[in-house]
Amino acid sequence: MFLSELIPVSDAKKTIYNCLKEPVIEEIDLENAFKRVNARKVHSNLNSPPFDRSAMDGYAILAENTFGHSANNPIQLKLVDSIRAGEKSKVELKNGEAIRIATGAPLPAGANAVVMEEYTCLDGNLLDVETAVFPGENVSSACEDFRKGDLVLDNGKLLNPPELSIVASAGFNQATVFKKPRIGVIITGSELVMPKNDLQGAEVINSNHFTLKSMVESCLAVPEMFHAVDDASLVKDMFTNLLKDYDALITTGGTAISKGDVVVDVAHEMGEVLIHGVSIRPGKPFAFAQIQGKPVFMLSGFPVAAMVQFDVFVRDALLKMQGLHVKPLKIQKKASKKMPSSLGRTDYVRAKIEGEMVHPLKIKGSGIIRSMVESDSYIIIPENQEGIFEGEDCVVLPYQSLKA
Amino acid sequence: MFLSELIPVSDAKKTIYNCLKEPVIEEIDLENAFKRVNARKVHSNLNSPPFDRSAMDGYAILAENTFGHSANNPIQLKLVDSIRAGEKSKVELKNGEAIRIATGAPLPAGANAVVMEEYTCLDGNLLDVETAVFPGENVSSACEDFRKGDLVLDNGKLLNPPELSIVASAGFNQATVFKKPRIGVIITGSELVMPKNDLQGAEVINSNHFTLKSMVESCLAVPEMFHAVDDASLVKDMFTNLLKDYDALITTGGTAISKGDVVVDVAHEMGEVLIHGVSIRPGKPFAFAQIQGKPVFMLSGFPVAAMVQFDVFVRDALLKMQGLHVKPLKIQKKASKKMPSSLGRTDYVRAKIEGEMVHPLKIKGSGIIRSMVESDSYIIIPENQEGIFEGEDCVVLPYQSLKA
Repeated sequence: MFLSELIPVSDAKKTIYNCLKEPVIEEIDLENAFKRVNARKVHSNLNSPPFDRSAMDGYAILAENTFGHSANNPIQLKLVDSIRAGEKSKVELKNGEAIRIATGAPLPAGANAVVMEEYTCLDGNLLDVETAVFPGENVSSACEDFRKGDLVLDNGKLLNPPELSIVASAGFNQATVFKKPRIGVIITGSELVMPKNDLQGAEVINSNHFTLKSMVESCLAVPEMFHAVDDASLVKDMFTNLLKDYDALITTGGTAISKGDVVVDVAHEMGEVLIHGVSIRPGKPFAFAQIQGKPVFMLSGFPVAAMVQFDVFVRDALLKMQGLHVKPLKIQKKASKKMPSSLGRTDYVRAKIEGEMVHPLKIKGSGIIRSMVESDSYIIIPENQEGIFEGEDCVVLPYQSLKA
Repeated sequence: MFLSELIPVSDAKKTIYNCLKEPVIEEIDLENAFKRVNARKVHSNLNSPPFDRSAMDGYAILAENTFGHSANNPIQLKLVDSIRAGEKSKVELKNGEAIRIATGAPLPAGANAVVMEEYTCLDGNLLDVETAVFPGENVSSACEDFRKGDLVLDNGKLLNPPELSIVASAGFNQATVFKKPRIGVIITGSELVMPKNDLQGAEVINSNHFTLKSMVESCLAVPEMFHAVDDASLVKDMFTNLLKDYDALITTGGTAISKGDVVVDVAHEMGEVLIHGVSIRPGKPFAFAQIQGKPVFMLSGFPVAAMVQFDVFVRDALLKMQGLHVKPLKIQKKASKKMPSSLGRTDYVRAKIEGEMVHPLKIKGSGIIRSMVESDSYIIIPENQEGIFEGEDCVVLPYQSLKA
């Protein structure tokens, strides 16, 4: 494939998503389910709250007893019992009586409101109530959150703190979730070495090892990292072995859009290369193949190109592979300067947000890691736009919004 | 303390932050440093890139040889060597010569540009170059990212993929980071039981166990979960034991703003209760103490109140305890309906963003977990505002932006 066949970003995404399989389901302890993806419709086993309960520390009373009363004209009630959280009163409250009640405790039979402790004065077993309360005041009614049988959580939802809370409250200590995809990541490049403080000859630090590992983790997937020298038969052996054990492969390096590049050639030999070259900047030499039914994402060796390709093409795919369909929050800001682009190409410009403005960073080249560290967002210049004028509104994708 | 002494949210935050200690530093493998906080200024050990290198697959040449040439008028050069990534050419390129070069490989001596393979035609050892290139074209210059000695990463930065990449590229396989705070979380309430599908008597599901554990984890801190019945001497024993082992405590329940509430009373006995009651809705009965020099956050027992209190008062504190000072991204949206509030009180209204609008959810009570599941953001009504009109711009804090 050659330059002339660059495909648009949207087509590339469609091709990738079409190749993804339905995720597998497993049952785990709710205790360990944070940031897992809920895989079934959760219908509650319980009413929540399970009973009418007090929302305050105070006294359970009959609201009608207090009507027309105030600090200047308190009503005196007779204290007949006390209920702590976790207890139920055996006493049925009668007209003219009060029962001391703790926050969260069940409202005793006969009562229909709670007066806050602050508006009362207790002397022995006589309680002055110095305010009027309405029926239901300071009471959380049974089932006001949900009822037994109600759908409380849909499938496909990420289990964040509120979702864990509702699953627990519905009576479940287990969660049915989608399995995390296991990703084999192959960093190719004979020149690459792990970090050290002196480089020999043509050695280059394998920084992609660290970025790709953490990017896969940031998608809630499980990476295993490998390194390959630029040798087709070694890369092929590695593909063969890893495709048995992993749900997808990601490679970096060897994707240049020319004949004879190691990784894409191996992919072509073993399966179907569906994408090679996308109209995007940075990150044009992105490739994607389906081999033995599994997706293989081939990213550039250049760090920044690889990061952008990951964010645009891989991130959503890894999330979808575990049943999560997210729409990152994009915002509108005003461009602090002009940015040229080409019709038909989508640009991801590293940028920094400042109030209502967004500043594109001045950077050439897709190897400039510093630009990723100093930026906090991408300005996206869509393919149907020839650029952005100074002061013009533009679409900004904060890196923050990419986090799962 | 009583209702009359409710303090503003900003004062409460100030009080809390003043009690936090400087975080402790440790050295870990860069391999495991994702989402840790960098604790030192990182100066590079290396130049990056370490040498002039090719940004493309193609041929290293002298740019001057190509001036004035094109597809119709190619210049013929003599191929004298080939350099793969990881290799250095021993040949010095002379006028009229070309050296085949792979992406990432060092530019050979004598060359000053790379022509892409696509614009050439090779026949034996004769190369036709069908375009003109300028000096430096398709070359990443040595040091264009950073130089040995440059400050490449400041302390206090979260180690995300780009930061890990730059630390590695600077030559380090270790990271100096702040220790993660260890948090003892005590869920109080005699009525609380772990999830099951039938509740007896006044039992209530301990959903806070799951929310608090995951919220602490979402702040990159390490929670250990405990449960206490409403008994002052048991709670006191637990405080005494846990304060030895943990960097901070969080409790839920027993904070009602009245006399005789278990947790706040214990805190008062053992240390200094600096906050009890904040002018916020939901979440008014928030308390904070310093005991044996350690921060103790006392949240409501009601799930939603506890979540809001956590997001407003605890989240930033746990991040600061590991050296991370973040400013969550707040955005502006138009309110889809009127929201009343009171002067002096800060409201956190659960809401859902839809395009340029934000919809406050209709919810009463601070126990309605479903409202947290169905919302994706808080509308913040600041204390100096009496409410928000329909169609008025308001400040929205997406939950997404709270993620570290």
